[in-house]
Amino acid sequence: MSRADRLADLVEERELDLLLVTNVVNVRYLTGFTGSNALAVVGRDVRRFITDFRYVEQAAQQVEGFEREQGPQDFLGALTDGWPPGELRLGFEDDHVSVRRHQRFREVIPDRIALEPAGGLVESLRVVKEPGEIQRIAAAAALADEVYGVLREQGLVRVLERDVALVLEDEMRRRGAEPAFDSIVASSERGALPHAEPADVPIAAGTLVTLDIGARLDGYCSDCTRTWATGELPDDLAEAYALVLRAQEAGLAAVRPGPEGREIDAVAREIIEAAGHGEHFGHGLGHGVGMEVHEAPRLARTAEAALAAGNVVTVEPGVYLPGRGGVRIEDLVVVTEDGHRVLSGTTKELVTVH
Amino acid sequence: MSRADRLADLVEERELDLLLVTNVVNVRYLTGFTGSNALAVVGRDVRRFITDFRYVEQAAQQVEGFEREQGPQDFLGALTDGWPPGELRLGFEDDHVSVRRHQRFREVIPDRIALEPAGGLVESLRVVKEPGEIQRIAAAAALADEVYGVLREQGLVRVLERDVALVLEDEMRRRGAEPAFDSIVASSERGALPHAEPADVPIAAGTLVTLDIGARLDGYCSDCTRTWATGELPDDLAEAYALVLRAQEAGLAAVRPGPEGREIDAVAREIIEAAGHGEHFGHGLGHGVGMEVHEAPRLARTAEAALAAGNVVTVEPGVYLPGRGGVRIEDLVVVTEDGHRVLSGTTKELVTVH
Repeated sequence: MSRADRLADLVEERELDLLLVTNVVNVRYLTGFTGSNALAVVGRDVRRFITDFRYVEQAAQQVEGFEREQGPQDFLGALTDGWPPGELRLGFEDDHVSVRRHQRFREVIPDRIALEPAGGLVESLRVVKEPGEIQRIAAAAALADEVYGVLREQGLVRVLERDVALVLEDEMRRRGAEPAFDSIVASSERGALPHAEPADVPIAAGTLVTLDIGARLDGYCSDCTRTWATGELPDDLAEAYALVLRAQEAGLAAVRPGPEGREIDAVAREIIEAAGHGEHFGHGLGHGVGMEVHEAPRLARTAEAALAAGNVVTVEPGVYLPGRGGVRIEDLVVVTEDGHRVLSGTTKELVTVH
Repeated sequence: MSRADRLADLVEERELDLLLVTNVVNVRYLTGFTGSNALAVVGRDVRRFITDFRYVEQAAQQVEGFEREQGPQDFLGALTDGWPPGELRLGFEDDHVSVRRHQRFREVIPDRIALEPAGGLVESLRVVKEPGEIQRIAAAAALADEVYGVLREQGLVRVLERDVALVLEDEMRRRGAEPAFDSIVASSERGALPHAEPADVPIAAGTLVTLDIGARLDGYCSDCTRTWATGELPDDLAEAYALVLRAQEAGLAAVRPGPEGREIDAVAREIIEAAGHGEHFGHGLGHGVGMEVHEAPRLARTAEAALAAGNVVTVEPGVYLPGRGGVRIEDLVVVTEDGHRVLSGTTKELVTVH
């Protein structure tokens, strides 16, 4: 059954006639269209796709199974008609549509059509990856592993953090991918900033360097963090590494269909809290990865969704010691019928790179 | 007067007490914060800045003149209190806040505070660039010119479009910038797709190649398109080039304070229409550039805003001949008190690059 057919089922279950899909990532998921501006309308017997002038030829090559139309760049003019007859309930993606755009939709869409908040329907399909999607994510993860291998050969000490980031991203591009997000290279006390920007500062010996990279390949992302030593470590950093690794492996071991995201989070968090570092782990344990580098499901204190086979998530605890440094270790993992399979292939043993 | 002070004036003019700034680009403009998650609240005597755990240390280094707070990643918990007393009118950015998020805001913000749509206030400051901003945009434009110079030396024929894009982006990064958008390299019939993705196809001799690149440097973007020949051209493509160049120069000559965006658009469009190619120029003439590569003001058929000194816009007519090829020529230009100054320094004469 096609993705659009499965969506049509969800639309009916929500007692809607149609869904207006405006999030362009969701449009790509449903139609295969890779341009930056398009929308789709899906219902039992409706497969409507609208893009603007710039993408008409591209859409003709990419989009099958939908009636293709050309509209103005804001699409409003195309939404005045083309609807099935009668009173209709039209869902819209309320988590992506702005208040202003919703108002414009209301102005141009006929009054007989009720607009109902219905965000998350396409995402609820995306959260369970198909085999072909898992293959793509695994390929993006393997590519990141290769890039880590290159960096390990090249070394870190006395190189600017910024130049390390350039090497990582250049190696991704040479392999046909692009960075899924701005790479993080954070050494010494900057490692205590979970999302530091790479600095024009040379990496010192005898400290930790947190490296967080993701590749986007064929529309799918990977995400992997490693923290490497650049020589013998002071005791507090060595202990932080051992602690985070222990928490990461425990969290990972808990990944399987059934538990809620918050239960997995708790497994890792309790280990870090028991060691007295709870206040130094201020973010969630992980997040889903797919067409977007942050998507459902989350592994976090407030995440109530249960894991299911086909989910792809990160497991990435961290400990951040202000003024000293930080550790984060992150694997990408797919939930399988009977447990999980780790997609990240770079060692998590403490590696020393000079 | 600081940007926040000028915003406070606009907030009062709109008969609001406060503005809730959630668009992170606007937050950066007001506060200097370069992270990915923060919001600000601005009113006559209010300068509130909230970010999450990940960015607390970074904000301490970057944000001055605001009271800094740490909140949860969705900020909702931080918005239940901290407000001035009494009945208040709180503007929000209705062009960026989703329908769902607006509902959450309404749930957590006290009832005595009315939420009023007020998108575009910060953008109305950003549209008139300060001298320091124009310098940054000019630097990003000069950097793109250097990159074009490198490519012209290296040549195009028999190189994959994709590899040309990699060279362009790599040269930007070597100079400390990053691409402001995915570079376009579109040769032969792919040039007829205004937003083609670079293909794994070697560039042929005797055709046109459209190159569209932008650099982001120190928070500001540039945007410049050139179309180069790879040898002697068939007549239709040579004529299209001459036509677009004539339209581009006429549009550019019309840029000064006073005219509405649609008037500038019409100057170039009429030339292309008179030559019988109106249907082959399906996009607007240009757009503003600044912290974002597409921002106000627009130069387009429906753009009613008058140009003002300090605006920075592109002037980029195109002619796209399906199955044959395309031409687009784009300069970046700042509106000055008495006319304009072009920031793009790469020649627009028809260049042949083998």
